[in-house]
Amino acid sequence: MTAIDLNSDLGESYGAWAMGDDEAMLSIVSSANVACGFHAGDPLGIWKTVKAAAEKGVSIGAHVSYPDRVGFGRRDMDVTSAELTADVIYQIGAIKGVAAAAGVTVGYVKPHGALYNRIAHDPKQGQAVIDGIKAIDRSLVLMGLAGAPILELAQKSGLKTVAEAFADRAYTPGGELVSRRETGSVLHDTDLIARRMLQLAQEGTLEAIDGSTIKVDAQSICVHGDSPGAVAIAQEIRRAFEADGITVRSFLKA
Amino acid sequence: MTAIDLNSDLGESYGAWAMGDDEAMLSIVSSANVACGFHAGDPLGIWKTVKAAAEKGVSIGAHVSYPDRVGFGRRDMDVTSAELTADVIYQIGAIKGVAAAAGVTVGYVKPHGALYNRIAHDPKQGQAVIDGIKAIDRSLVLMGLAGAPILELAQKSGLKTVAEAFADRAYTPGGELVSRRETGSVLHDTDLIARRMLQLAQEGTLEAIDGSTIKVDAQSICVHGDSPGAVAIAQEIRRAFEADGITVRSFLKA
Amino acid sequence: MTAIDLNSDLGESYGAWAMGDDEAMLSIVSSANVACGFHAGDPLGIWKTVKAAAEKGVSIGAHVSYPDRVGFGRRDMDVTSAELTADVIYQIGAIKGVAAAAGVTVGYVKPHGALYNRIAHDPKQGQAVIDGIKAIDRSLVLMGLAGAPILELAQKSGLKTVAEAFADRAYTPGGELVSRRETGSVLHDTDLIARRMLQLAQEGTLEAIDGSTIKVDAQSICVHGDSPGAVAIAQEIRRAFEADGITVRSFLKA
Amino acid sequence: MTAIDLNSDLGESYGAWAMGDDEAMLSIVSSANVACGFHAGDPLGIWKTVKAAAEKGVSIGAHVSYPDRVGFGRRDMDVTSAELTADVIYQIGAIKGVAAAAGVTVGYVKPHGALYNRIAHDPKQGQAVIDGIKAIDRSLVLMGLAGAPILELAQKSGLKTVAEAFADRAYTPGGELVSRRETGSVLHDTDLIARRMLQLAQEGTLEAIDGSTIKVDAQSICVHGDSPGAVAIAQEIRRAFEADGITVRSFLKA
Repeated sequence: MTAIDLNSDLGESYGAWAMGDDEAMLSIVSSANVACGFHAGDPLGIWKTVKAAAEKGVSIGAHVSYPDRVGFGRRDMDVTSAELTADVIYQIGAIKGVAAAAGVTVGYVKPHGALYNRIAHDPKQGQAVIDGIKAIDRSLVLMGLAGAPILELAQKSGLKTVAEAFADRAYTPGGELVSRRETGSVLHDTDLIARRMLQLAQEGTLEAIDGSTIKVDAQSICVHGDSPGAVAIAQEIRRAFEADGITVRSFLKA
Repeated sequence: MTAIDLNSDLGESYGAWAMGDDEAMLSIVSSANVACGFHAGDPLGIWKTVKAAAEKGVSIGAHVSYPDRVGFGRRDMDVTSAELTADVIYQIGAIKGVAAAAGVTVGYVKPHGALYNRIAHDPKQGQAVIDGIKAIDRSLVLMGLAGAPILELAQKSGLKTVAEAFADRAYTPGGELVSRRETGSVLHDTDLIARRMLQLAQEGTLEAIDGSTIKVDAQSICVHGDSPGAVAIAQEIRRAFEADGITVRSFLKA
Repeated sequence: MTAIDLNSDLGESYGAWAMGDDEAMLSIVSSANVACGFHAGDPLGIWKTVKAAAEKGVSIGAHVSYPDRVGFGRRDMDVTSAELTADVIYQIGAIKGVAAAAGVTVGYVKPHGALYNRIAHDPKQGQAVIDGIKAIDRSLVLMGLAGAPILELAQKSGLKTVAEAFADRAYTPGGELVSRRETGSVLHDTDLIARRMLQLAQEGTLEAIDGSTIKVDAQSICVHGDSPGAVAIAQEIRRAFEADGITVRSFLKA
Repeated sequence: MTAIDLNSDLGESYGAWAMGDDEAMLSIVSSANVACGFHAGDPLGIWKTVKAAAEKGVSIGAHVSYPDRVGFGRRDMDVTSAELTADVIYQIGAIKGVAAAAGVTVGYVKPHGALYNRIAHDPKQGQAVIDGIKAIDRSLVLMGLAGAPILELAQKSGLKTVAEAFADRAYTPGGELVSRRETGSVLHDTDLIARRMLQLAQEGTLEAIDGSTIKVDAQSICVHGDSPGAVAIAQEIRRAFEADGITVRSFLKA
């Protein structure tokens, strides 16, 4: 692989409350998962982030969520399929509108938080998300967890997909993320993380938490920007890629 | 005039709460002002209304509002221009997305409630709304109060406009709406309302509250559907138009 | 039993959206489960309902919910215990404040919708609700589903409880509610419902959906008022009780 | 004056979004204006702040607001008196409930942001706030802008009041705050601010923006904690007071 996508969750401020360093991250990533207002993001903040992404040539994704602002979309919800499909359409529409106002387009959809985790393995909610995406724009790409069933479900439904890996997360021998509740689930060593991501990009493998080597087929890597430390990790990953001749470029521009 | 538009506020249910008889109104009106989620309308309800409007060939307008659900968008708010412009873009985008999912397009924008009244005469907030509309889609038509300065402001900014009259409201000799706080401001006599609207369509005039005749240049008439009585009034207006050879047809399809 | 409590969900309007006929129901029931703003109820509407209940001598309960207005609190949510305990405290506090302004007190707590169903059997969320109630006021009574484990859990924690039955629901031979997804789960025959509730009050038994007789130990009966038919059923239950010499009286005034 | 109150706006985080350094400020101030959930504050965050304030012996005030979370309560709203009174009751009730759960009581009410500024001079909304406070608890003290008509209005209505000055704001020769839109309205010089507050506490005077000396009769001083610089200013004011023998103590404990 000579090119890879770096994506990050952006536009997650809300009114007077700031979150993350969008300015810094937009100089690092190639794809911006922009909050749509359901877990985070108010219209003015979303618009500022989309305009800044547009200026830097960063691809725009709709970061759709359960309607749970106070819980930041992190709490599983038993929404009906009809509700979920409509929620997805509404949110993608809103971001498409903001993107149009900034002179750019939305290229992909990445569900957020609890919805992301739920649909990775739940075909009922997964299909509802897929149906929403297809209803509004069949050309949108669905970003999902590398190896998760949602990707195949989306492909069977006629959607293009992109698989992502998480830079700062440990993996099980089975290729799943180690639960955040377990020790060692989140990595903090910048150099280690950068080496792991190089290996992922170059060999398509990662070392699992038990020391075994697993195959992870990912075209995008999720990095975070919600703390100065997180921004530094993202910067180092990009630097390592470029030092090894790997271009950071949105999968949409491949 | 041999054709006129009838518009109504629809999609104003919210989750478990119903409002208005969208089904009945969509058989009467030619244009549907669809709530965008800020004063009313949840995604699933909005989608149902947009799909029903699409099936009946009723034009879709974005009924944008201040972000005030508990106040139903009826309370004046001192939002900044930047906030208002972004709020307008976001809401129009959301409805455009839902319309796309239903295979139709959004043709116009009608601000709701307190925002409607404020921008009729406030050039600062008016310009912010206009800027939002232009940013997302310059082909959208702004619907506003017949005779109000907002229409000229929008035209100068390059937007097309359509002027509307209110079927069940009394007018001052100066051509403005009589405040709801005053006696006689709202009309309830179905026959009288139908006769007034015929006169408006045929002669471009209305009798003001003092008995004088005023000129009202309107291409659309707003009717309500929030009670059985309101639906009956709307039906009678349509019947009277058709009996006199006036076609009820969206201004967008003229 | 010579007295029984009738309770109903009230104060569930929201801003411009009406729900239920609080006025009618307050003449029928002895206990009002008042929405606290999380699934339904805005402050002004809550206050009107609490004042009306106070005038009629109807007991006030806090009808606490997950924070899910658009879903009317009907969707299961994986909230943390700390979040749930704080949400319960906040909601009870708000209703206690409104009750104080109306010169009365809050006597009990009845969780709403998905939260009600979840805690009936989930000791983790159940304990979080109990902890919230105890933190704010140990004298509050918890109303729960007759026969469900939550009642024993609450008693062990030092709370008083009251068990309720549902007038219009079918029961399994095991004494649980038949799921709404199954045929025959909701009863509509007014006379049948009244006869069943008489049997419940007089003998502590109900006929289950398979024809067997089950024991149901309930001190309160939940009736609905969200449609004219529902109000009529509630009225008939009260009439039947009074005709047979059973007083309708809040369990708090026993 | 040998004692003065220092108050600050606290509990203004919201879910995943942090705001201010409540921990630091609770070691400086004697009174905490705690957000009630309408402009800021989620139940869990509010509870944490109230518990921390209780542990440090800091007095609790209800920081009531317009219902405008996305605008942080900073935008003037034309709410009706009935809505405003009910909103005030609900918010105070919620904080009273949380305080009860923490074993303390709410001592005063300080309206927030746009509502604070509006009622300083608007007797209609001012009276609605006063009516709400009196309805729920006549012993609550209303905190308002020193010299503003709201204080007299509240006293006439039977409420106790406390007047506050703003540490980092310039004053007009007429004793009002210089508008934030004007140059020099906000002070940043820590030493200057501390000297001004000493003068205020010792002599009841301040130097206005034109150099004249004005009388400001304040029993409480508002300090901010929304940035490291703001915390440092608050610390220096407290240090200066203590160095000069002025005790920092809640006006409620006088």
